[in-house]
Amino acid sequence: MTQNAFAPTPRTTLKRRPNRGLYDRALIHSILDDGFMCMVAYVHEGTPMVLPTGYGRIGDNLYIHGSNASTMLKAALEDQEICVNVTHLDGLVLARSLYNHSINYRSVVIFGRAERVLDREEKIASFKAYADQVLKGRYEDVRPPNEKELNSTTVMRIPLTEAVCKLRAGPGQDFDHDLDNDCWAGELLIKQSTHALVRDPRGRQDVPVPDYITSFQKIPNQGAQDNTVDVL
Amino acid sequence: MTQNAFAPTPRTTLKRRPNRGLYDRALIHSILDDGFMCMVAYVHEGTPMVLPTGYGRIGDNLYIHGSNASTMLKAALEDQEICVNVTHLDGLVLARSLYNHSINYRSVVIFGRAERVLDREEKIASFKAYADQVLKGRYEDVRPPNEKELNSTTVMRIPLTEAVCKLRAGPGQDFDHDLDNDCWAGELLIKQSTHALVRDPRGRQDVPVPDYITSFQKIPNQGAQDNTVDVL
Repeated sequence: MTQNAFAPTPRTTLKRRPNRGLYDRALIHSILDDGFMCMVAYVHEGTPMVLPTGYGRIGDNLYIHGSNASTMLKAALEDQEICVNVTHLDGLVLARSLYNHSINYRSVVIFGRAERVLDREEKIASFKAYADQVLKGRYEDVRPPNEKELNSTTVMRIPLTEAVCKLRAGPGQDFDHDLDNDCWAGELLIKQSTHALVRDPRGRQDVPVPDYITSFQKIPNQGAQDNTVDVL
Repeated sequence: MTQNAFAPTPRTTLKRRPNRGLYDRALIHSILDDGFMCMVAYVHEGTPMVLPTGYGRIGDNLYIHGSNASTMLKAALEDQEICVNVTHLDGLVLARSLYNHSINYRSVVIFGRAERVLDREEKIASFKAYADQVLKGRYEDVRPPNEKELNSTTVMRIPLTEAVCKLRAGPGQDFDHDLDNDCWAGELLIKQSTHALVRDPRGRQDVPVPDYITSFQKIPNQGAQDNTVDVL
């Protein structure tokens, strides 16, 4: 393993289809950077719990923040292992048999212990990463946090040390005996995209929409290939 | 509580912002029906784990299936509580202060114990629900499972008894003293949508694309309102 990949551990080694387990650092970073929300799993009062939340990445650290009163942050910052998942749905895999249907996706699983961020500069840097994660350009355009807002926010850091990517791409793996079936087969590509803006009815109504919003396209078309024949 | 709502339990009662906790059965069903994938959280060898997977719903039962060899299914079918989450990202909430930024979403959390489905008819019905969940019309168009395929698939049922929805909609809650800031504020709506078809390069190339694919639009535009002023 080079430093360009995460070292597999027992928890990040896939039991089935180990060829779908990928440890490349740049790949894992890019999947994290394509996401808007992550899923945080932790154990609370003996029960596994999974909740969505925003996040930001700086190098090999993931940052998650919320109110000081957040139940999720309190639980995750107790002395326990947590699991974070970021998944992108890239397409439906339509095979000729029901059995060979599948989903194309890119998914990253991270294991680790969260640490509370106490350093003021790191906290502010994590806010910028958090904002950049969803909409680059926004951070510079808004009123920054004041001391009260800064102090009422808890930030936790999850070091990226134990991480694995699992993904599927391409068409279905139909059995040979199904290939001549009278059934359209292929991929139906799916992506998350912006589709409209709604101006806040309160406040100033004359502020123009900034370029970083009108030109926003966080997620490129994943899965588009040379044999893409029909654009919906 | 009427039968049109799930009864809150300690686990499904929100500690903060309890007004965001909703138990309406039709609302929870509709959020589940809008999804392609769910997140399943369980404890495996002492560690919380969360993985994405497909699912189907029949009434108040959620069905998840996979290979008999699936580590996730094996763990979830051990005698343990699991948690399932389905979340839709509906938009970015762009406020005038960084602090008041948020995300509009609809999220359902389900707690329960999974049971293995042994009944043949229920298993087949769950396959149809699973297929209908992602693409209605597909089930009727493909080769159904044979006995070998049926027997190599494990199906688990999670009864919907303990479920809660949490959601956010609408613009940011800017403080009054920020309303005159020179900063565009509002919602940037986001949805998952299909964008292209890729025909499987193997097999017959002359099968036309069926109507249920070309007309497919699983997810309506969420959050579009009368004051939607700019379509991207």
